[in-house]
Amino acid sequence: MNNSFTIGGQIVDLVNSRIFSGVVVVENGKISKIEEKAVGNTRYIMPGFVDAHVHIESSMLVPSEFARLASCHGTVATVSDPHEIANVLGKEGVRYMIDNGKKVPFKFFFGAPSCVPATAFETAGASLNASDIEELMASDDIYYLSEMMNYPGVIFDDREVMEKIASAKRYGKPIDGHAPAVTGPDLQKYVSAGITTDHECFRLEGALEKIGLGMKILVREGSAAKNFDALIPLMATHPDKLMFCSDDKHPDELDDGHIDVLVRKAIALGYNVLDVLKAASLNAVKHYKLNVGMLQLGDDADFIVVDDLHSPVARQTYIRGVLVAENGVSNIKYKETETPNRFEAHFLYADDLFVPDEGKRIKVIECFDGQLITKSFFAEPKVENGGIVSDVERDILKLVVVNRYKPTKPAVAFIKNFGLQRGALASSVAHDSHNIVAVGVTDNDILHAVNLLIEHGGGVTAYCNTEMVAVPLPVAGLMSNEDGYEVAAAYQNADALAKRLGSKLFAPFMTLSFMALLVIPELKLSDKGLFDVKQFGFISVFKE
Amino acid sequence: MNNSFTIGGQIVDLVNSRIFSGVVVVENGKISKIEEKAVGNTRYIMPGFVDAHVHIESSMLVPSEFARLASCHGTVATVSDPHEIANVLGKEGVRYMIDNGKKVPFKFFFGAPSCVPATAFETAGASLNASDIEELMASDDIYYLSEMMNYPGVIFDDREVMEKIASAKRYGKPIDGHAPAVTGPDLQKYVSAGITTDHECFRLEGALEKIGLGMKILVREGSAAKNFDALIPLMATHPDKLMFCSDDKHPDELDDGHIDVLVRKAIALGYNVLDVLKAASLNAVKHYKLNVGMLQLGDDADFIVVDDLHSPVARQTYIRGVLVAENGVSNIKYKETETPNRFEAHFLYADDLFVPDEGKRIKVIECFDGQLITKSFFAEPKVENGGIVSDVERDILKLVVVNRYKPTKPAVAFIKNFGLQRGALASSVAHDSHNIVAVGVTDNDILHAVNLLIEHGGGVTAYCNTEMVAVPLPVAGLMSNEDGYEVAAAYQNADALAKRLGSKLFAPFMTLSFMALLVIPELKLSDKGLFDVKQFGFISVFKE
Repeated sequence: MNNSFTIGGQIVDLVNSRIFSGVVVVENGKISKIEEKAVGNTRYIMPGFVDAHVHIESSMLVPSEFARLASCHGTVATVSDPHEIANVLGKEGVRYMIDNGKKVPFKFFFGAPSCVPATAFETAGASLNASDIEELMASDDIYYLSEMMNYPGVIFDDREVMEKIASAKRYGKPIDGHAPAVTGPDLQKYVSAGITTDHECFRLEGALEKIGLGMKILVREGSAAKNFDALIPLMATHPDKLMFCSDDKHPDELDDGHIDVLVRKAIALGYNVLDVLKAASLNAVKHYKLNVGMLQLGDDADFIVVDDLHSPVARQTYIRGVLVAENGVSNIKYKETETPNRFEAHFLYADDLFVPDEGKRIKVIECFDGQLITKSFFAEPKVENGGIVSDVERDILKLVVVNRYKPTKPAVAFIKNFGLQRGALASSVAHDSHNIVAVGVTDNDILHAVNLLIEHGGGVTAYCNTEMVAVPLPVAGLMSNEDGYEVAAAYQNADALAKRLGSKLFAPFMTLSFMALLVIPELKLSDKGLFDVKQFGFISVFKE
Repeated sequence: MNNSFTIGGQIVDLVNSRIFSGVVVVENGKISKIEEKAVGNTRYIMPGFVDAHVHIESSMLVPSEFARLASCHGTVATVSDPHEIANVLGKEGVRYMIDNGKKVPFKFFFGAPSCVPATAFETAGASLNASDIEELMASDDIYYLSEMMNYPGVIFDDREVMEKIASAKRYGKPIDGHAPAVTGPDLQKYVSAGITTDHECFRLEGALEKIGLGMKILVREGSAAKNFDALIPLMATHPDKLMFCSDDKHPDELDDGHIDVLVRKAIALGYNVLDVLKAASLNAVKHYKLNVGMLQLGDDADFIVVDDLHSPVARQTYIRGVLVAENGVSNIKYKETETPNRFEAHFLYADDLFVPDEGKRIKVIECFDGQLITKSFFAEPKVENGGIVSDVERDILKLVVVNRYKPTKPAVAFIKNFGLQRGALASSVAHDSHNIVAVGVTDNDILHAVNLLIEHGGGVTAYCNTEMVAVPLPVAGLMSNEDGYEVAAAYQNADALAKRLGSKLFAPFMTLSFMALLVIPELKLSDKGLFDVKQFGFISVFKE
């Protein structure tokens, strides 16, 4: 591909907040000349979009494939936290993401995951201590310390946590926050430690408090959390403080759109076009000091071409002067890649799921569509042959978490609202330790779904008597090493079967993947047992 | 359910070729009174539909589930040849179909399969010799000798064949034909042996010759062969000689419609309504002497209720006075059933599929969409590491047939026109011996698809790196023992993946299932090797 050329149109200059008619000359991937003059072309040339916070792993695609899908939507760069793969493979996983991302013409800016493992109450595949973080921070490939979820650690001056923060400061790299419900003096302490962003706001009030303390707010709209509607009013009052991000984006949804969707939505709501475009690019570039071109002389030629300024759809996406996508078709070629993994689970047997009836009521996890939080209640168990079984009529199903890092007896609990009428689902995407999480209407269905998953070294599976679907994710049990568009179709197929099995959830596998996430209240299941997030400790399945 | 009641409307009396206003009294499942009188109701009460020739097995449903789906479309009875299960399980299979069919209020009339195995050039699971046929014919549960495909045997007075025919005659039971291209003196010999029907006509000319010799013609429109358009003109000239049948009906298509579709289509073309309705019921009932009610005094109360005589859609279906279906919803309950099978294949290994290059051209099977016939041609092989591999660019893929009755090295050949761009498909529905047939773009994909199938004791599977779908068919490797509507959805899912893998065929699994059918020209693959139907013998994959 030739990356020396001239292109003319209406040039959107976000740095100087103006739009002018002119010509851009690109030589060797950089902008060598910008000439302001009348041109016959009414198309707009504007900076490409930046996803200011996204876990690439959630797309189930390796970075090189993520790039293919995202660049079709005008995305040229991401600020990415390899938190998921780090929980499985540690530093080796972080390195894999960096190396894989370099195979393609796309700009990945990775951070060092600050909280691996997420808690001490679960089995992860790896951990990153303060000296690991120091080592990562020293690398030119690491751009920031990523989401500091351990806000108690910050507030109470946990030594290890403070050392990680000190490392980031030593190298002059920003520190990302993650503080959904932190407020008042705790928040002041959290911010004063040097944490400068938050992407977990879900109400204006909390966001305004954080902005008041100097934080930047990432407006998040992904496959999991959706905060755009709640936070977009900040565009009128604090546009310079905002960035757009997706956090988690499933492959089928990434195929449908990315940051461009937020841009069009915000412009359609009447917000200032330049403010919106800055939130979609310049603000992140400035905050994280990203080497992403902003259509300035000498910049990398990273930009997109759109027909309609007020509803920008990327007709062409250029990165370092390379036309990486045109009219929705990627020019990036699929790259072969390795499949590093850590997967030592053994096949389950029926005995493993047996929960003897103790004549007591059971504590049931209640999940909610589209939410990471759960509640809990006590219920009479359904008993068969002395064992507690799934109760389809009351929609109280068996939930299982299986340690995937070494053969261990699985943890078994019960969950309300999954809605399955038959069959079972299993996933090795299970935040944050990514053990195997499964739910099903009979022990036999659960066994089949889990064992099918184990057979493939990870992935998502749906099983019932009449059919089964498996989507293997051999890279850390989180990502496929195959073509991203095919993975999107495969995931959609698994999702469709999950719904055919009776689940009314918007994204059954996503909800499932958060049922082992111990840092979000109220009741979750780790591979080690039922976990009460408020007490921050294990509790019995039975009412004492 | 109460099966004594009175129902009024416009009564369609096919026996006497008239329609009159009146009331039907049903007592204990039989018609105890018919009163001709004015009624306020304009709905039509007419005999239910009869599928005059269908292999239930092709629906992938056991008879008790087939009944649920078919009765919703106004079907009350089928004339059914258990040919497929007989090839796997012999008499035991025939008995299974009869017993299973009796579990539900639906009228199955089974025949004795005349040609099991279909040829001596393949490995079937069982055989039915003349004394087996004699034993079956003696049973009250067997209504006819089913499709005599071995027309050379009839024409040349093969002793075994003639004994089977003699058995049927001895018990006064009809003998069904299957003589697609037989004509002239051969046809005369075939008919004079006592064979009275044919369902293989695809041109008016051949059908008229057969009618001239006294045969009845079954107008067939199923998932595989579609002859309605070619043969329906006979409705104007020879309505009494016609019956409607489907022969093979996949579960998803059975869910969409059955004989009722042919009825509506024929009436819409302008043929006489009573003639069409007779072809859909009375003609088969008379020919096969079926105990199916025709709305005559003393008959079983088998009938349907429709709103529009000229576009009949079954609002209600009654069998022996039981309301088995209403407004598309079945009142028949799902029944548990056993899963008899014969499945002794071992997992395949890569070596099993290796075809050493001999420096010669290869003979390629050319398949065609929607056709059972194939052609052949010679091609240069694609060679890798000394072995011949699938050539996706030229769409020449490896085709494999694996003996499922005992562990044996598979037969490997090559096929054009399957269109797969990636992955592999496998099926244990593989006419007529129902070994495992598979096609794929790499040996590895084929291995996975076949082994996934073997793991489940039969079924259909689609496999690729990004996903896999399996539909287990544990009853003889041909049918599911589960809910028919779920099986329909599962099959549709496998079909969708086959198409996503690149196949442009209308029904990839159906085409695949006929690639081992040795009685249809020109080149096929048995578990024992490449088979030239014209020479009726094995030939080499290589050009000699």
